[in-house]
Amino acid sequence: RGIRVGYTPDVLTDATAELSVALLLSACRRLPEAMEQVKNGGWTTWKPLWMCGYGLSDSTVGIIGLGRIGQAIARRLKPFGVKKFLYTGSRPRPESAAEFGAEFVSLTRLAEESDFVVVSCALTPATQGMCNKDFFSKMKKTSVFVNTSRGAVVNQEDLYEALVHRQIAVAGLDVTTPEPLPTDHPLLSLKNCVILPHIGSATYATRSTMAVLAANNLLAGLRGEPMPQELLL
Amino acid sequence: RGIRVGYTPDVLTDATAELSVALLLSACRRLPEAMEQVKNGGWTTWKPLWMCGYGLSDSTVGIIGLGRIGQAIARRLKPFGVKKFLYTGSRPRPESAAEFGAEFVSLTRLAEESDFVVVSCALTPATQGMCNKDFFSKMKKTSVFVNTSRGAVVNQEDLYEALVHRQIAVAGLDVTTPEPLPTDHPLLSLKNCVILPHIGSATYATRSTMAVLAANNLLAGLRGEPMPQELLL
Repeated sequence: RGIRVGYTPDVLTDATAELSVALLLSACRRLPEAMEQVKNGGWTTWKPLWMCGYGLSDSTVGIIGLGRIGQAIARRLKPFGVKKFLYTGSRPRPESAAEFGAEFVSLTRLAEESDFVVVSCALTPATQGMCNKDFFSKMKKTSVFVNTSRGAVVNQEDLYEALVHRQIAVAGLDVTTPEPLPTDHPLLSLKNCVILPHIGSATYATRSTMAVLAANNLLAGLRGEPMPQELLL
Repeated sequence: RGIRVGYTPDVLTDATAELSVALLLSACRRLPEAMEQVKNGGWTTWKPLWMCGYGLSDSTVGIIGLGRIGQAIARRLKPFGVKKFLYTGSRPRPESAAEFGAEFVSLTRLAEESDFVVVSCALTPATQGMCNKDFFSKMKKTSVFVNTSRGAVVNQEDLYEALVHRQIAVAGLDVTTPEPLPTDHPLLSLKNCVILPHIGSATYATRSTMAVLAANNLLAGLRGEPMPQELLL
């Protein structure tokens, strides 16, 4: 009580959406595996299906949480030839969905019909552990799962089982439980799981903007003035 | 003489443009390094500039060769907040450039002004070795270089020097000279060089389309009929 709190909303939307697409493409086009093949001599002559992945052309993309970041992700994915966008969340957002012709569906339909699932929702009691065994079991065997929101939206044990048994093709995570993830975590032993160290907002430009905004919040607070971005509880 | 040749143009445009963007984002957002940090315990507490990269927001993108694939790359990059597209090539292509508001410039201006340089031209006597010491020396120290066309467009010794001395920030290559690249090649020792084993067209859908087209070319040839796609020399 009495402690004022500044924060830095919005400024990381673009960087996080960009990182989400980077992670999705790295996962679906198998970049980490492919780079490893260059280094270990696995790259030899041309073979028809070697290192083949799943592209976005004619795909269905399901977005869990069509907020600012979810929309920014959809905007970037659209010109890759996505055929259909689905989304789910606490409520339909027709004004946001119109830009992508995105259809509001249940979590079940999103799991069943999506070739790519991207999680970009907030962590709340309703979303905690939402991507679990039941969810993964409904996804396509060729599907790609990407989480750049919060680690606890995903049940990691269930994700591990889904990846080991190839219930889904591949996952990309920028967030985990806990963070940092222990280096001996089972997910790190899988070729079809790409894990990043929570670098969604890690661009020089974004971190600089965040720093300036944080400093201005602080200065305003010290002066007893309204902060540029103040958390009002 | 008398030997008819079928080929498979166009069908790989989307997959190759997608891979080009995947490689660009992997390079500029430092995904391989970041993944390595997760595995080796380098991921610890949050630090303001740790694993920061260069994003596409407000950037200038220079495309060498605004053909089918170059256009497909620009189309995918545009919603990432690119401020300005430049391009160069054997001639201006105003009808293709209009979609991106892309400006036709000299190779020198493209090197000097671009934050990202993407090579998507054909290999010809005019383009062979075009990205050389002189070219890299004009690029920005913070710039990102991506080649998904043919390895010989780049002078690899000059690229190595530019990367070692940080004349440019990072490179991403899907093509090299030779292919496969020897596993002891100096470029493979650099943290700021991402190398893929020529997987531009490597999606299941694209390779399947290529195979069917190749088979139909062959069948038409055996029947003495015009091929769906015949190389006319």
